[in-house]
Amino acid sequence: MYKLTISPPDARAVELAKARQDSLAKPPHSLGKLEDISVKLAGITGELYNPMEKRRVLIFAADNGIAHEGVASAPQSVTLSQTINFTRGLTGVAVLAKHFHTELDVMDVGIDADFTQPGVRDFKIAHGTKNFAHEPAMTRDECERAMDIGVEAARRARREGMQVIGVGEMGIGNTSTSSAVLSTLLGLPAKETVSRGAGINDESYRRKVALIDDAIARYAPDPADPVDVIAKVGGFDIAAMCGAFLGAASEQLPVVIDGFISAVAGLCAYRIDPLCADYMFPSHASRERGYMLAMDAMGLKPMLNLDMRLGEGSGCPIAFEVMAAAESVIAHMATFEEAAINDDYLAEIRPNKRFQGEA
Amino acid sequence: MYKLTISPPDARAVELAKARQDSLAKPPHSLGKLEDISVKLAGITGELYNPMEKRRVLIFAADNGIAHEGVASAPQSVTLSQTINFTRGLTGVAVLAKHFHTELDVMDVGIDADFTQPGVRDFKIAHGTKNFAHEPAMTRDECERAMDIGVEAARRARREGMQVIGVGEMGIGNTSTSSAVLSTLLGLPAKETVSRGAGINDESYRRKVALIDDAIARYAPDPADPVDVIAKVGGFDIAAMCGAFLGAASEQLPVVIDGFISAVAGLCAYRIDPLCADYMFPSHASRERGYMLAMDAMGLKPMLNLDMRLGEGSGCPIAFEVMAAAESVIAHMATFEEAAINDDYLAEIRPNKRFQGEA
Repeated sequence: MYKLTISPPDARAVELAKARQDSLAKPPHSLGKLEDISVKLAGITGELYNPMEKRRVLIFAADNGIAHEGVASAPQSVTLSQTINFTRGLTGVAVLAKHFHTELDVMDVGIDADFTQPGVRDFKIAHGTKNFAHEPAMTRDECERAMDIGVEAARRARREGMQVIGVGEMGIGNTSTSSAVLSTLLGLPAKETVSRGAGINDESYRRKVALIDDAIARYAPDPADPVDVIAKVGGFDIAAMCGAFLGAASEQLPVVIDGFISAVAGLCAYRIDPLCADYMFPSHASRERGYMLAMDAMGLKPMLNLDMRLGEGSGCPIAFEVMAAAESVIAHMATFEEAAINDDYLAEIRPNKRFQGEA
Repeated sequence: MYKLTISPPDARAVELAKARQDSLAKPPHSLGKLEDISVKLAGITGELYNPMEKRRVLIFAADNGIAHEGVASAPQSVTLSQTINFTRGLTGVAVLAKHFHTELDVMDVGIDADFTQPGVRDFKIAHGTKNFAHEPAMTRDECERAMDIGVEAARRARREGMQVIGVGEMGIGNTSTSSAVLSTLLGLPAKETVSRGAGINDESYRRKVALIDDAIARYAPDPADPVDVIAKVGGFDIAAMCGAFLGAASEQLPVVIDGFISAVAGLCAYRIDPLCADYMFPSHASRERGYMLAMDAMGLKPMLNLDMRLGEGSGCPIAFEVMAAAESVIAHMATFEEAAINDDYLAEIRPNKRFQGEA
């Protein structure tokens, strides 16, 4: 069984952060998730104040054999071209990352092409997965090697001083693999985890659902063993992302979930060790229908409601800003004591002593 | 009837922005509200690119006579002390504004105390409103004067180069006035617009509901005339905020709605001129139960899901960041043409000519 050592949150730091939030001059819990985020961060790092300035999105790019079945809305070559475009600052996540002072760490874990591109780490496991319409996507050994790449990427982020990371991906066909993994983990038929999407027609939708249901019936991946599930019907990207969530938790590094694929990979990590959820921060509520199923399974609620479904990690840079907002509140808002306006001050600002407050 | 000249959105700029979004290298509408925001901004300003760097939250502070009925969770003196604390950088919105490079414009439109505080503009209409448990909150003339203050604050923001403003408030008792205004505008009993809140007990809750229902029955404010409604059961803060929304729309300035009180003031402006909604951007989905009623009445959907209910304008600085993200996407993301990786480039990055993409 794939397992890392993950510590539970620091209970003392959590209590200190809660006490600090309750001491701030506002009605109890009136800053909602901004308070919860600061408390969760304290539990992760053991520190009351957690600047969110050093940020990085990990992007795992890989091709999926299932894309050859015509279930994706874009040609497979887009995996390669967008991976190159991450390094040129041209994609959605690249633009948002630049705007919000976020680094990208782009990794090829299985693109179906040989190439060398500055800014793309070559960790290729294979030239895409096998087509799960015909055979399992990868071997268990390949899956664990892909997971190791994700674990190591989280460790590298920690070593290089990152204070928060996000987990994104690029891989044509990966909504199919994600729906297949989610259906297996939750025991749901594919029609409940596959979105119609904007890019595919009714025929492609029905085909996608049937392919997933068939593959799950044929290979019978074990829902209690996410490595088996990813190996049979997942992808290298999902495996590496799952590793990144596990690695972040084991390194006590806050980690942001992007959209549907990221959420499914997060759920795999959570099924391997439920403590992972204590390190995760969901960003935006994806419009992909499986997204909320994965959130509910982990007891998490997203902070942004932007109707996004681009992937790439594009929700992460915005979420980092919300986390930074949470940090600024716990660090800088006045306590009730500091906010109190004493009589001397009131006497000073009142020109004619008239003051009808009830203080 | 209180009326300003408000132009409809620039249809040509809207079409240009939509076309630009559709030309960007992503599945159609996959960046959801980030796309919608950029299109709406184009309609407001007539420009395709709208930087969101000069930002200001307008804060209108006033006391409410109804607070003397014991329906609020804090003493009335908090209106004055928190108004002073805005200028000292100590409150929630002040901390978030500083973090996100946002100015505050703090205005006393009716605090029940005489004082002079640098950073607080003295636009006091009266020492708080009348207690609507006994008599209408203010005269129609007072309401229109408060609205004028809001209109002028929006104009000042425009003159001083602001690219976006938010509308916040401070006023103990203003969830009561907001529920009363909302109940009147939507024809709903107070129990459907009043939250239990964290700060009041069952007895206070029942009292608050009864006071609002009684006042509406007694004064019969005209739901078709928001000025009449605010005058009878609203507050100076709501009146000025309503004016700020009208002023922003008439100045073609994007304006962000904060929480419940801000949303109710926005709805008043919308009922005076529905074109106002084309200039409004809701920020966070407040936990106050009336909030979504106001949103639904205007056909708006918030972008943040943070369980906040602090008020002050505290959701605005975070929303400005999301709007800036939207701007960065339309301005900097590659078009399909720019994102295409041509054969020459592929030949260059392929060490051994092996390339299995489908391009």
